[in-house]
Amino acid sequence: MDLSFTIPLSGGITVLVILYLVWYIFKADRGDPAMQEIALAIKQGAMAFLKRQYTTIAILAVIVAIILSIMSKDGLHTPLAFIIGALCSALAGFIGMYVSVNANLRTASAARKSLNDALKISFRGGAVTGLAVTALSLLGVAGLFYMFDGFNNPREAPLLIVGFGFGASFVALFAQLGGGIYTKAADVGADLVGKVEAGIPEDDPRNPAVVADLVGDNVGDCAGRGADLFESTAAENIGAMILGIALFPAFGVNGILFPLVARAFGLLASIVGIFLVRNHDDESEDPNPMASLNIGYAVTSILSTIAMYFVTDQMINKNGSGLYFFGCAVIGIITSYLFVLVTQYYTDFKYSPVRQIARSCQTGPATTIITGFAVGLESVVAPVIIISAALLSSHYLGAISGIPDGGVYGTAVATMGMLSTCAYILAMDTFGPITDNAGGIVEMSQQPANVRFITDLLDGCGNTTKAITKGYAIGSAALATFLLFSAYLDEVQLLDKTFNRVVDIGKPEVFVGGFFGAMLVFLFTSTAIRAVSHAAQYVIREVRRQFREIKGIMEGTAKPDYATCVDIVTRGALKQMILPGVIVVVVPILVGVFLKAEAAASFLMVSTMTGVLMALLLNNGGGAWDNAKKCIELSGVYEGKNSEAHKASIVGDTVGDPFKDTAGPSLHVLIKLLSTITLVLASFYV
Amino acid sequence: MDLSFTIPLSGGITVLVILYLVWYIFKADRGDPAMQEIALAIKQGAMAFLKRQYTTIAILAVIVAIILSIMSKDGLHTPLAFIIGALCSALAGFIGMYVSVNANLRTASAARKSLNDALKISFRGGAVTGLAVTALSLLGVAGLFYMFDGFNNPREAPLLIVGFGFGASFVALFAQLGGGIYTKAADVGADLVGKVEAGIPEDDPRNPAVVADLVGDNVGDCAGRGADLFESTAAENIGAMILGIALFPAFGVNGILFPLVARAFGLLASIVGIFLVRNHDDESEDPNPMASLNIGYAVTSILSTIAMYFVTDQMINKNGSGLYFFGCAVIGIITSYLFVLVTQYYTDFKYSPVRQIARSCQTGPATTIITGFAVGLESVVAPVIIISAALLSSHYLGAISGIPDGGVYGTAVATMGMLSTCAYILAMDTFGPITDNAGGIVEMSQQPANVRFITDLLDGCGNTTKAITKGYAIGSAALATFLLFSAYLDEVQLLDKTFNRVVDIGKPEVFVGGFFGAMLVFLFTSTAIRAVSHAAQYVIREVRRQFREIKGIMEGTAKPDYATCVDIVTRGALKQMILPGVIVVVVPILVGVFLKAEAAASFLMVSTMTGVLMALLLNNGGGAWDNAKKCIELSGVYEGKNSEAHKASIVGDTVGDPFKDTAGPSLHVLIKLLSTITLVLASFYV
Repeated sequence: MDLSFTIPLSGGITVLVILYLVWYIFKADRGDPAMQEIALAIKQGAMAFLKRQYTTIAILAVIVAIILSIMSKDGLHTPLAFIIGALCSALAGFIGMYVSVNANLRTASAARKSLNDALKISFRGGAVTGLAVTALSLLGVAGLFYMFDGFNNPREAPLLIVGFGFGASFVALFAQLGGGIYTKAADVGADLVGKVEAGIPEDDPRNPAVVADLVGDNVGDCAGRGADLFESTAAENIGAMILGIALFPAFGVNGILFPLVARAFGLLASIVGIFLVRNHDDESEDPNPMASLNIGYAVTSILSTIAMYFVTDQMINKNGSGLYFFGCAVIGIITSYLFVLVTQYYTDFKYSPVRQIARSCQTGPATTIITGFAVGLESVVAPVIIISAALLSSHYLGAISGIPDGGVYGTAVATMGMLSTCAYILAMDTFGPITDNAGGIVEMSQQPANVRFITDLLDGCGNTTKAITKGYAIGSAALATFLLFSAYLDEVQLLDKTFNRVVDIGKPEVFVGGFFGAMLVFLFTSTAIRAVSHAAQYVIREVRRQFREIKGIMEGTAKPDYATCVDIVTRGALKQMILPGVIVVVVPILVGVFLKAEAAASFLMVSTMTGVLMALLLNNGGGAWDNAKKCIELSGVYEGKNSEAHKASIVGDTVGDPFKDTAGPSLHVLIKLLSTITLVLASFYV
Repeated sequence: MDLSFTIPLSGGITVLVILYLVWYIFKADRGDPAMQEIALAIKQGAMAFLKRQYTTIAILAVIVAIILSIMSKDGLHTPLAFIIGALCSALAGFIGMYVSVNANLRTASAARKSLNDALKISFRGGAVTGLAVTALSLLGVAGLFYMFDGFNNPREAPLLIVGFGFGASFVALFAQLGGGIYTKAADVGADLVGKVEAGIPEDDPRNPAVVADLVGDNVGDCAGRGADLFESTAAENIGAMILGIALFPAFGVNGILFPLVARAFGLLASIVGIFLVRNHDDESEDPNPMASLNIGYAVTSILSTIAMYFVTDQMINKNGSGLYFFGCAVIGIITSYLFVLVTQYYTDFKYSPVRQIARSCQTGPATTIITGFAVGLESVVAPVIIISAALLSSHYLGAISGIPDGGVYGTAVATMGMLSTCAYILAMDTFGPITDNAGGIVEMSQQPANVRFITDLLDGCGNTTKAITKGYAIGSAALATFLLFSAYLDEVQLLDKTFNRVVDIGKPEVFVGGFFGAMLVFLFTSTAIRAVSHAAQYVIREVRRQFREIKGIMEGTAKPDYATCVDIVTRGALKQMILPGVIVVVVPILVGVFLKAEAAASFLMVSTMTGVLMALLLNNGGGAWDNAKKCIELSGVYEGKNSEAHKASIVGDTVGDPFKDTAGPSLHVLIKLLSTITLVLASFYV
């Protein structure tokens, strides 16, 4: 059955829903003037950052596009796709950020009324990002497929679209890096001078860096993670389409379009889930907004599963193969769920790992760090087992489906299953910084305690959903690697008929390629972490200058100059993102050009394995330290706030900040950028 | 030319030299009764630990030997070799430790006379370990070769000796793990209760854990590192011999015996270097014992190079191939030298990385940890490039030598070149804990300042040489992997004629094998680090108990019960070494048995790559933190001792302790244990 009409249909519906949600948010109450003033400062700062960042990225992207045009062997398809991918990614980031800096104020205002209102506005703000990102990726890839005459030319078109994925991951890398460096430099800088030197609390309006800190939540978590998942869905769609080429004899164009149709149904399922989120009982003694988010996620998962049964049955079913592929999709959805569980186990203070760290805080910062590092290292074990099990079982199901080359396609279908709930997950993620910002606005405009209680409650939820998204993003990255890797081997084989699809790490140059891949992960992590330190230095110097030169800040008689602080972090972060970004683009090209295609493949594989492990270590270790601090603060164990144990836990949290919000998430992007860059440049490696 | 007579000859000469050195040490002055009392406590503690440890290891080894006998398909050769390897390794550790716990007292006593006397006794004490370890490994492998009738059966014998390497690395793993956990648990425990809670200085005789701390230096650094390098030289000799089988048509038995002859000449070169070490100018204002150690190393390297020219020319020279292989050996010697330079750059406070960490100490423990972690991550880059360059260039030289299959043999010769200075390097290493102990004895027996100055000077040298050895050990491990990996492929091919020596990571199960390999490194590191925390808890509890129950300790009127403390750390460390040790043995077997030979190969390769990187991160990061603290203490920057910066640097140092002295060095052993275990069990994976 030809289901390709569902792609534009679902895209169109999603656009209408986005418009409705935007109308819903913008019509809400904008609060009092004190709130509006702060929100305006955040909005201006965020937009100023985005403008400068996009200018920098545009320059870099144009350089890459020119190089691609010169080098291109297949006309201007790849550079064109690259530019469209880059533009779509930037647009997705912009939409998410724009809605989020408007939803924060309205959430803060709604928190004066009820939890339900605040939850609905903030979650729907996040939903705009989730839907926009997923729809743009779907429509972008589908649009290029039509543009490159895919229906008449189905076996060549997917390879021409690869540039779209490269453009998306190129922008995502710099968006995530720049945003991640910005947010943590502002955070660390504000804390070190404000809390430590001047002795004023967090989010205190007297701190000149406080607005920069709130801006950071938007640029790091909204724009950064939006770009991250945009390129995830794009790269994985394209990779799966390329694998679909090999199944052309069995399924025709349906095998190639299956990933897009699956995504289209996933979007619709996510829309249903999104509209279910509301707090049902505002009168409850112990309100739990997380329960409502979980209901939405469960419904989205169930609807996706049903849709997957229908789509596999209609599109990739030959002699009963549909049921096998449906099994693969279910494996993907289960994998996604297991990743959520494991991430929660390692980062939530209900469970043993975070409690161990909290306990070790009693013996000082050194034992806090050692235990947290050990927890982070250990947290990679379950994900590796889950990914391996998903990979082997979906490959096995695909292989016994009776379709030639069905094995790898099985893993592709599993990846599609995992990503079918993407829009909903992303909505939960962007919900986090909106509530975080709303809390900041409430604090800075000195609202009463019951308002702060509601935003705190939502903020706590947001921390959990952010951690979940990171686990989800790295899980899908890992599962997708194998798919992109196979697509790369397919492409090399098309270019070089003598290539036998073997990547033999027993050869010295292939071993060296892999070794360099692992090394790149370490080097990139090092430069990303250092970038935060360097950028934080700018903030520290500027805050000290303002305290010294603007008389009356500490007494509250003069206002600090927030805008200059924002500007300085912006310039610092963008300057510092260049080195790690360039390393990631240049090293794989050098390996491919000098050591050739097989070494490039080994580079890709080993860097992915190491990158996944390092990202898990950084994300989970950082999250666990964060929550060990929260555990001591909230549950009052080990003498609670301001005790020696609490001070040690703050050291852990500060160490974890660049781990979990800069280096870790950037590694997700790195993994997929390496895949797309290798795919695009395959012709130079043979 | 048949040079095989040089193996027993060189072995015999070495034994005579060892006897002379032991006589030289034991005839030296034993100091005053106060010194002797402390030294006796250390000696008793170390021997008690060794006895208990060897009992535990013996039980584990017997279990493995029985399993090997039952599973064996080639008679009792492998279990027999395993037992002999395990015994030799234990003997090497025992000799090194025994001499070291006697040399420490005599060094302390000699420090009352002159720097030259103290240097000579301590270095010659180290030399006994270096020579004993290398000679035992050489004579063990050669002895088994004769025993298994190698001259009449040269193409089968090397494969039967593999068990020797497995035995050696099995013992080494537990020796390094147990010793590493012991030394850091005692150190951390003594510091946390003594310095932090009771407020008494380091090495203070009132601290009940102080003797355990001094014992730790011996069991961790002497016995542990001795076992580590014993299995390095053994495993690499055997690996190279197996590769020599493929060259049988060209060189006959000479290709197989070349590694042993090269080692024999290296031993003689090291002996010359060892006797050159003395402090030439006791009257100097700024005495520098390191200069003298460097002269000895340079002479050893030059003599080894000359010997390598002779041996390659005589043994593996056919149509001029000798010169190519000599080139490979030179590459190995240069690699070793470059590793020493890189390690010094990242861990010596003369250079930028350590200074950056020291600077970041000004902004507190969090920035100290972040910067140190970034430095550790960055420090992997140069070693990866050096190893890759050595691998590719020696493989290339071997391949163009005109000998079929010469490429891999080229890398084997390079490894032999790198290891030719092994005995000397190991002497420098064991010198470290001897001087460290001598310093402790001097401190505890309250000698005058000029004596303490001499032991401090030697101790500083010892820290540098210890860092160098770690760099050397991991470099040789990395280079050797490729060799052991090729040997494994050779063996699988012998067992399964259909195996085409290809390890294709494009296959799902092979990818999963590699992924598990990387994961194992993270899991092992996590458990090793946690083991230290757990064992330290026993120490903390016991020290607190003694302070509470033995009245008068703090006033100096009652003596603490050192022996009980030693006993408790011993039992704690041995209990904690079981879990990480068993993981390392069990996981590769599971991968091999369930995913088969190709996945096991990929497991081996990826775990090696990741293991090398992780070990470098841990060793160099830990070393850099240690020296950042020393930098602040000695050069008085950032307000020197007891400043806030100094306190932050202590946090860094404490975090680095289990990194650099427990997990890092254990990873060297892990890498080679995985190789030997895979080689021994190859027949179960096909």
